[in-house]
Amino acid sequence: MELFHTPEQALQWADANRDRTVGLVPTMGALHEGHLSLVRQAKRDCRLCCATIFVNPTQFAEGEDLGKYPRTLDADLAGLADAGCDAVFLPTAEQIYPPGFSTYVQPPQVASGWESSSRPTHFRGVATVVLKLFHLVPTSHAFFGQKDYQQLCVIRAMSRDLNLPVQVVGCPIIRESDGLAMSSRNRYLDSDQRLRARLLSLALAQADQAIENGVHDVQALQQLMTQTLSAGTVVDAGGATATVPGIPVGGVDSIDYAVLLDADTLQPIEHLQQPFVGLIAARFGSTRLLDNRVWQPVQ
Amino acid sequence: MELFHTPEQALQWADANRDRTVGLVPTMGALHEGHLSLVRQAKRDCRLCCATIFVNPTQFAEGEDLGKYPRTLDADLAGLADAGCDAVFLPTAEQIYPPGFSTYVQPPQVASGWESSSRPTHFRGVATVVLKLFHLVPTSHAFFGQKDYQQLCVIRAMSRDLNLPVQVVGCPIIRESDGLAMSSRNRYLDSDQRLRARLLSLALAQADQAIENGVHDVQALQQLMTQTLSAGTVVDAGGATATVPGIPVGGVDSIDYAVLLDADTLQPIEHLQQPFVGLIAARFGSTRLLDNRVWQPVQ
Repeated sequence: MELFHTPEQALQWADANRDRTVGLVPTMGALHEGHLSLVRQAKRDCRLCCATIFVNPTQFAEGEDLGKYPRTLDADLAGLADAGCDAVFLPTAEQIYPPGFSTYVQPPQVASGWESSSRPTHFRGVATVVLKLFHLVPTSHAFFGQKDYQQLCVIRAMSRDLNLPVQVVGCPIIRESDGLAMSSRNRYLDSDQRLRARLLSLALAQADQAIENGVHDVQALQQLMTQTLSAGTVVDAGGATATVPGIPVGGVDSIDYAVLLDADTLQPIEHLQQPFVGLIAARFGSTRLLDNRVWQPVQ
Repeated sequence: MELFHTPEQALQWADANRDRTVGLVPTMGALHEGHLSLVRQAKRDCRLCCATIFVNPTQFAEGEDLGKYPRTLDADLAGLADAGCDAVFLPTAEQIYPPGFSTYVQPPQVASGWESSSRPTHFRGVATVVLKLFHLVPTSHAFFGQKDYQQLCVIRAMSRDLNLPVQVVGCPIIRESDGLAMSSRNRYLDSDQRLRARLLSLALAQADQAIENGVHDVQALQQLMTQTLSAGTVVDAGGATATVPGIPVGGVDSIDYAVLLDADTLQPIEHLQQPFVGLIAARFGSTRLLDNRVWQPVQ
């Protein structure tokens, strides 16, 4: 596995391989099975895979966890090599944002609301660094996890709007055995929070079960998700409310949103007649966790 | 000379020629010798030249001259063929901005002030369409006229900040025999305005002469340019103020700016100890004309 520390090396490698299909996997390091699944998917779809590890300062706001964001470089490189990654680009912040840097991407409409409500400049930073990486390491494909669903929508819309010659591939969420979506930020959770963190996936599973059972009212489904998150309870097959064995009493500390939206535009919906997504952001102390699930239209 | 009407055709051509140096010349049509000089420069520096003709709606504000912007397609194509252009990309507004388009470039710091004072969203539109064209017709070089000096600075800074793999080449202003910088908007001038339009280049020549004569005070030089523009007079070798033969009495209708600035940042300067630019925007009725001149540091 080759390591590139300068933009020139990365571009040279991409240039030398431009006749091959190459999959790019942009990451911020602190890699888990979710990231490694992107590398494996890239290696299935493409001849080569190049990962990038860069903790991007412009997508963090003042007071967020940029400084304490986990850095696990040795383990990251071992994991990438093991997953079959061919090359890793490891730029510094000074290389990506030299003095005088001042051009940003003004992200597409789908960046509005949801994550942007609590992180107003987040997607500007994400879109800008992804565009720069697409130029620095030009590849035929780029792989992103569906876990950060709004981010995936933003990158897809940006790529379409700016005519980027790269195919953006979204990959399924990888979960812990109890259903928690893998995230680099899960390591911030204490043991009590970690048990309650399961409520995000449980809320989505509750909605799924209810849809299966014929509940097609958007408000009712959102209420069900909110109830599972805030009270830590589920509705069983008989319609009774019950606590969940193994989850400490009490729900999440707070809910940022728990909504059903149009899966493409992330606009609110009134019916389930287009592809739709359940989108959740909830907090445990200062840790924010995300989860989501996509459904096909209910006939 | 090949004509491409769809993005797919243009990309295919660029792809087929990616092992050759190719110069891109983005234009809005209504071509004059200034544009054709860019094509000739591209053909000197590169193996092939592709021009684009696209009147870009996002760089016009409400009430500007988008609707009446001159369209002279037959003459444009004849001129391009004659200048040795190999290919022309002629997209429609719907192809460049399909429904749902919503991602823009937030232009670099150097876009602030000057043109942006009267056209606040202009450079957002310019930067966005240029970035899109760079993706739609990937080439090794791109040629822009120095006449739109702030635009050239914006495109250079964007290319650097976003790591665009294209070399941006600025080309000299081409002038009419009386010194007027060529512009598609010159055809809006009536015969009286056309005579007075010479005052922009005269103001810059006056500044040049004064610098040559040892005037190195920025305020004094700006005042000299302003006086030439507003009064239509020049200062002769003996220091006397005189009218200019052949220019009707009265200066320009109004001055937007007539300033000396740092040639790279377009920030105000106090001394002439770095490369600097004289930047002028003035109006004749509803027609706005630009001109500029770059100087090396005065020792």
